[in-house]
Amino acid sequence: MSFVPCESSCCFPLQNLPYGVFSRRGSGEKKIGVAIGSHILDLSVISKAGLLPKSIGRTLEKETLNDFMALGRLRWLETRGVLMKLLSEDVPTLRDNNPLREAALIQQSDAEMHLPATIGDYTDFYLSREHATNCGTMLRGPQNALSPNWLSLPVAYHGRSSSIVVSGTPVRRPRGQVLTDARDTMSVALKPCSILDFELEMAAFVGTGNQLGESITTDEADNSIFGLVLLNDWSARDIQKWEMAPLGPFNSKNWASSISPWIVTLEALKPFRCPAPAQDPPVLSYLQAQDRHSYDIHLEAELVAEPSGGRATVTQSNLKHLYWTLPQMFAHHTVGGCNLRPGDMLGTGTISCNRDDRQGLGCLLERTWNGSQSIALSDGQHRTYLCDGDTVILRGYCQGDGFRVGFGECSGKVLPAVA
Amino acid sequence: MSFVPCESSCCFPLQNLPYGVFSRRGSGEKKIGVAIGSHILDLSVISKAGLLPKSIGRTLEKETLNDFMALGRLRWLETRGVLMKLLSEDVPTLRDNNPLREAALIQQSDAEMHLPATIGDYTDFYLSREHATNCGTMLRGPQNALSPNWLSLPVAYHGRSSSIVVSGTPVRRPRGQVLTDARDTMSVALKPCSILDFELEMAAFVGTGNQLGESITTDEADNSIFGLVLLNDWSARDIQKWEMAPLGPFNSKNWASSISPWIVTLEALKPFRCPAPAQDPPVLSYLQAQDRHSYDIHLEAELVAEPSGGRATVTQSNLKHLYWTLPQMFAHHTVGGCNLRPGDMLGTGTISCNRDDRQGLGCLLERTWNGSQSIALSDGQHRTYLCDGDTVILRGYCQGDGFRVGFGECSGKVLPAVA
Repeated sequence: MSFVPCESSCCFPLQNLPYGVFSRRGSGEKKIGVAIGSHILDLSVISKAGLLPKSIGRTLEKETLNDFMALGRLRWLETRGVLMKLLSEDVPTLRDNNPLREAALIQQSDAEMHLPATIGDYTDFYLSREHATNCGTMLRGPQNALSPNWLSLPVAYHGRSSSIVVSGTPVRRPRGQVLTDARDTMSVALKPCSILDFELEMAAFVGTGNQLGESITTDEADNSIFGLVLLNDWSARDIQKWEMAPLGPFNSKNWASSISPWIVTLEALKPFRCPAPAQDPPVLSYLQAQDRHSYDIHLEAELVAEPSGGRATVTQSNLKHLYWTLPQMFAHHTVGGCNLRPGDMLGTGTISCNRDDRQGLGCLLERTWNGSQSIALSDGQHRTYLCDGDTVILRGYCQGDGFRVGFGECSGKVLPAVA
Repeated sequence: MSFVPCESSCCFPLQNLPYGVFSRRGSGEKKIGVAIGSHILDLSVISKAGLLPKSIGRTLEKETLNDFMALGRLRWLETRGVLMKLLSEDVPTLRDNNPLREAALIQQSDAEMHLPATIGDYTDFYLSREHATNCGTMLRGPQNALSPNWLSLPVAYHGRSSSIVVSGTPVRRPRGQVLTDARDTMSVALKPCSILDFELEMAAFVGTGNQLGESITTDEADNSIFGLVLLNDWSARDIQKWEMAPLGPFNSKNWASSISPWIVTLEALKPFRCPAPAQDPPVLSYLQAQDRHSYDIHLEAELVAEPSGGRATVTQSNLKHLYWTLPQMFAHHTVGGCNLRPGDMLGTGTISCNRDDRQGLGCLLERTWNGSQSIALSDGQHRTYLCDGDTVILRGYCQGDGFRVGFGECSGKVLPAVA
């Protein structure tokens, strides 16, 4: 237990200690912190007080986590050990040092969160068999739902890193080129997106990475992963449909992707490791692992309308359902020698699990079956796709015995398109 | 004319003044310079001597061009004016100051070149109608060569920025998952790429960019473009074929992309502006421009084999043939609000022009028509695709009256795959 209070439903007990970048409200100064209860421990203060391991230098006094990420797993573990002690109710160092405690602990409500790292490259995968099957069924029918390569490799594409924003940042409905008459490929128009969707995903932040020309194996991957966040890969379905062939999604996705501010480390998630789904047919050996595992992370998406306040839990899913695992993402991404850098981000793709009541589907395209079945909000309104003023809130946590290791929220409100 | 000697066939006369980042051989210290003749003017020295405009601050004393790029067109023009004067044969400031000249001018042969900017995001377009038609014909037959959207929007996908390397860096043949029997989608293997290709492209570096949620119009785009480089978008065709559906190229492209080290500014290219091909059918208004233009840039690709030294000019093409223009790339990329940042890079895609003798085709896939027609090297060897030890050299220049504004070379040698 920590001397900083933390309720059992709180995402940030002593067992978690996720890293983020914050500034005190009104100050522009970015600092690295860990969340503890409803507070943040300002690590620049702790570092300057000489309480962090010498081996990590001044990496936690920077404005982003990239340098700390680059240090590697041993240093992360060493630092986690020191922080756990420092925040423990049994250790007086910080607990009983009033001036230091007051300088180092701030209320989360007094802080503004920022992107935790400079994200060099962002890759998005397509790891959920249920999601790929559902999308494929709507597109090509149930006979050819999965593309021929889907069971042989974790399909992925390169995303846009410049437009990744932190939770709480509003997103503007994009304009884009769409086809207005499906029978006539000349009938195009520039219009505000009219089929606006979210995607419930998670993303891994690369810690140590690899050199160009080298690879990361499935068994090494856990040493490369710094931690995970929630990711909402906003999608403009009408723009996507028209632009997607032959080179993949582009303007339909690159206008915004939202992430939760706190990176939950793999170490904090370790108690929640669980087996990953078996793979049939067997995959090539570079995609096999001695210890094939996933994580049991409850995920949900809520939609809140404005100004009515009507709301609905749209999705309840779990990371553990993904057919492809995080280590498989890393192994496939680097098998040809592509280099991952500290701070690069790898998304899982939409996390769906098939439930008969559709509650397990991670985006509105699937959830409303291409707009054919609407979702009732608490105020009697209905939704197929997102309206201006709607806020989407993703949440995720691992349930321990009397505590939660959680991700907090990833929220974003839809602003009207530019006139 | 400059007091620094420059032959008429040299890429870097006073009219050019391209920007790059170099270090003196043996020193790790990165500095910004402009190429002049066979020399480099070290701008950190010139800046410290107080000879640059006050308005640009110390941006040219940095290790990358990003901060200078961010200043915008007016500052770039002001700086260009100052540098042209400083290097002119009529101006004594640098010409007659022996210690300053010796400190500031170094031989290109004594320098090592680096990436000119931190490239946040790399986007690759598909602007050449000839290239798209040829690829589509090989894939789907001549009736459906162009995808339905191709004439309506400049097709693009997000590429990988971490693996962009500067000319001269060897590239390692990637391994990847390929289909070994086209009739059986279960017959997959991890193998070194056996259909290794180059792509002759150019790329624009973003100067000022735009804020998330805003757009850049075709008429504004020239103010955003800092300059152009040569780009070789190395491609593993067997990996590409298997992975590409449904989300586009991934491991087939992300293992290396090479660029020439010197960014030739749009100002230096201005005298070589020319009309771009007419577009039929007409495009939407956000893709139209008051002054639709391209640039007359001769491009070629040479292949040199090792150890024989056998060589062949594989391709001769020209930027001016591209159906879609640079301003159209910028307008389409940002129409939905995607933000471009200083130092981001936008590739044109393979630049092909249809010639009956196939010399105008910008990659081996087209040049050998899917491997069916080999290319003779000067030593009697033949090539369909690249062998280990082959070096691909791209070159490009604009021909003026008695001078050239050139890009120098973009070269890369293929190393064998990891065992």
